[in-house]
Amino acid sequence: MSFAGEQVPGVEQPAPEAQGFRLNHSMLRVKDPAVSLAFYTRVFGMRLLRKLDFEEMSFSLYFLGRLDDDEVIPEEIGERTAWTFSQRGLLELTHNWGTETQEGFSYHNGNAEPQGFGHICFTVPDLDAAIAWFDANEVEYVKRPEQGKMKDVAFIKDPDGYWIEIVEPARMKNVGR
Amino acid sequence: MSFAGEQVPGVEQPAPEAQGFRLNHSMLRVKDPAVSLAFYTRVFGMRLLRKLDFEEMSFSLYFLGRLDDDEVIPEEIGERTAWTFSQRGLLELTHNWGTETQEGFSYHNGNAEPQGFGHICFTVPDLDAAIAWFDANEVEYVKRPEQGKMKDVAFIKDPDGYWIEIVEPARMKNVGR
Repeated sequence: MSFAGEQVPGVEQPAPEAQGFRLNHSMLRVKDPAVSLAFYTRVFGMRLLRKLDFEEMSFSLYFLGRLDDDEVIPEEIGERTAWTFSQRGLLELTHNWGTETQEGFSYHNGNAEPQGFGHICFTVPDLDAAIAWFDANEVEYVKRPEQGKMKDVAFIKDPDGYWIEIVEPARMKNVGR
Repeated sequence: MSFAGEQVPGVEQPAPEAQGFRLNHSMLRVKDPAVSLAFYTRVFGMRLLRKLDFEEMSFSLYFLGRLDDDEVIPEEIGERTAWTFSQRGLLELTHNWGTETQEGFSYHNGNAEPQGFGHICFTVPDLDAAIAWFDANEVEYVKRPEQGKMKDVAFIKDPDGYWIEIVEPARMKNVGR
């Protein structure tokens, strides 16, 4: 593998058996889908690609992604499901019915103990403009860009408290070297 | 938004301010990067796009993704970092130095209590072939496809116990309806 001359322990050649494997989505449980959907569609510009309801097990799944400009989503519902699972880099939100009305109910964001999952990250074309937009929407911060050591990186919270990293690619060139 | 006639509470039009926002990655903490990198590069066919070391804070970041066939990664290291943050649907693994030698150390996968993060999902061109491949690699299962209600869905565990859903898009057409 070409990696700028660096040999990294553990890195191997992809097996032919793994050809076509694609990272389709990451799943987060959410307390209230109406709140989360408003946040991810309006504030982050994502589209709801597919909603799947499992009545017998009392939960619903929401698949969110960004469409390329010329992309057309199949109208037929089965084709639409297959198409959704053919995408990459989606966000899946799981709603276990009833949590939205349970007082004091909340999910664990993985950064407090016990740790595990860390965050999702959105890149934005203009970090300053994005920060102004988040401020206009009264989004809660874990870290504003001007705080801490990494001046060009922000962390905000989604409605469930999951962390979202915000970076502008062009301002990341000197990170980690 | 065109959503096969369905109105979903919370879904709004994307704001123009969110144009160009892109879901770049999801981050998981891992105990031993050599083990995780072998798993995600060889078994899942991912490529290590960029490794960032933060000596002062004693951690490293590994960005994994899949390259399109004709894609060329910039060789210059700053350009390569900016390019990595311009991608979508990557997996970021965080290694806090030293965990790999701590006996009994493990991360929380979000599915045991306290719940939050659920899983990542890979889609595969052929579910049966993928299962044979995972069996050949002695991958641990949460649920084999033939177990439980959803016969076309498997869940396996990565080396830290994070769940990975495995589906074949064409076999998902009748799910959730």
